[in-house]
Amino acid sequence: MTKLLKAKEAADQVYEGIRTKVEKWKQIGVQPHMATILVEGDPASAYYAGAKQKIAEKLGVAFTLHAFPGGVAEEELLQLINRLNNDPTVHGIMLELPLPRHLSASTIERAISPLKDVDGVTPDNKLATVTGDTGLYPATPQSCIRLLKHYGYTLEGKNVTLVGRGQTVGLPLFHMLQRENATVTVCHSRTPDIASHLGHAEIAFVAVGRPSVVTQEMVHPNLVIIDAGINETPEGKMIGDVAIGVQSSAAAVSPVPGGAGTLTTAILYENLLKAIDLQLGEDK
Amino acid sequence: MTKLLKAKEAADQVYEGIRTKVEKWKQIGVQPHMATILVEGDPASAYYAGAKQKIAEKLGVAFTLHAFPGGVAEEELLQLINRLNNDPTVHGIMLELPLPRHLSASTIERAISPLKDVDGVTPDNKLATVTGDTGLYPATPQSCIRLLKHYGYTLEGKNVTLVGRGQTVGLPLFHMLQRENATVTVCHSRTPDIASHLGHAEIAFVAVGRPSVVTQEMVHPNLVIIDAGINETPEGKMIGDVAIGVQSSAAAVSPVPGGAGTLTTAILYENLLKAIDLQLGEDK
Repeated sequence: MTKLLKAKEAADQVYEGIRTKVEKWKQIGVQPHMATILVEGDPASAYYAGAKQKIAEKLGVAFTLHAFPGGVAEEELLQLINRLNNDPTVHGIMLELPLPRHLSASTIERAISPLKDVDGVTPDNKLATVTGDTGLYPATPQSCIRLLKHYGYTLEGKNVTLVGRGQTVGLPLFHMLQRENATVTVCHSRTPDIASHLGHAEIAFVAVGRPSVVTQEMVHPNLVIIDAGINETPEGKMIGDVAIGVQSSAAAVSPVPGGAGTLTTAILYENLLKAIDLQLGEDK
Repeated sequence: MTKLLKAKEAADQVYEGIRTKVEKWKQIGVQPHMATILVEGDPASAYYAGAKQKIAEKLGVAFTLHAFPGGVAEEELLQLINRLNNDPTVHGIMLELPLPRHLSASTIERAISPLKDVDGVTPDNKLATVTGDTGLYPATPQSCIRLLKHYGYTLEGKNVTLVGRGQTVGLPLFHMLQRENATVTVCHSRTPDIASHLGHAEIAFVAVGRPSVVTQEMVHPNLVIIDAGINETPEGKMIGDVAIGVQSSAAAVSPVPGGAGTLTTAILYENLLKAIDLQLGEDK
């Protein structure tokens, strides 16, 4: 029987830790505050921003949604970020993606202060993720590793196949897996035979962002799989990168929804608390 | 018969290209100029600095060796780098490693202008190596790939095992191999069975910096190996990371000396010319 690696329990533990820290900050007069920037046009982004807002309420975190019409000028977003960077009552800044075509995500992300960059998108934090230096690491790759460990799996000395090498999930995940001392093989669109690499693996992470990248006949009964994909079907259903049949042929698989994505939201707030530590550390 | 992947011919081709470019710059009044910083104490470093100086003479490149006694203060080195950064007649800055223990290589490297950083050691260039953005990439990993290609091997879609994950060679090489679309497995000191990963590989890069990391019984007759290691034996002989016996059991191996290291020096000067392009581009 394939084990389903649901994230709810792990996420609840993270939230519990956050609530305790939020209370401590409030007692000394600091109200943790997340600012989210949303450019309208992508229904999924609006949905995610709304979901984050609900969680903020439960955590006692202040949440400001800065929503802009689809035609907003880049300069206007940069000015807002500059204001948020300099506002000591704002501790975290998140930019919802994707953006309309006339906006450069990379230019806008670069404008965020590295100390408020709760999803690790600035050059400083990207480099810190590579080198292992102190910083705010992207949430999704952190979530993938945390979910695996929550179920008692270890990475040290394990053969790991990572499918996907994107700048957002795959590459930072590769670097985090190095620090866990896994032996990692990185597969991608130009890998002729992903199945053979999964065959040598004990653990697989799949982070391509396309449905059915890994199918039932590619996996084996001892393989543990974390699915970092979130894809929307034409019917509006949310599915992962791993095909349905995999759930009956591997040792364990994280579900979508209810897997890595669920824990990612929790870790964004964990990063917010880490950001506060970094900012108050800097002020001293 | 194992093929020896000697680097002399490839290096000569690089030097030929550099000489042509140096002449072009001189014709418009620009004298390419490399500055090397050497803190005395490590005999090998002094040797390498001297070797680079001889090559500079052959290329028509101006070369200044800034040598300091072993007890030099970090502040003095930082002041020199600041002066070299601001000197428009200096185009490349290299820091010979290792440094004495009281000096932080990372602090000193960070002081170098990214536009003069011919060995890709600054944070900007490290990140560029990760993302593939324009920049000056470290010379040794470039050399490893160039040497392989010089002998007609391709990387696209190949199974590559990379042994070593250091910040200087292994990690940047991993990112360059991604851009070649190889499927890369990264082995390291915590990998229980490096031989099994070499068994699945068509090409291997070895960059650990310790002799006999790869031995004869770990390789197979179809494996092509680039040895990026440079180690000194107690007798003062220079050897690679690959044991001697490998040279009769693999399909092809790069020798040490005369392999990747030989081409690395050439690529440092190629980076100097690239640095000039970047600096004059910036000035426009």
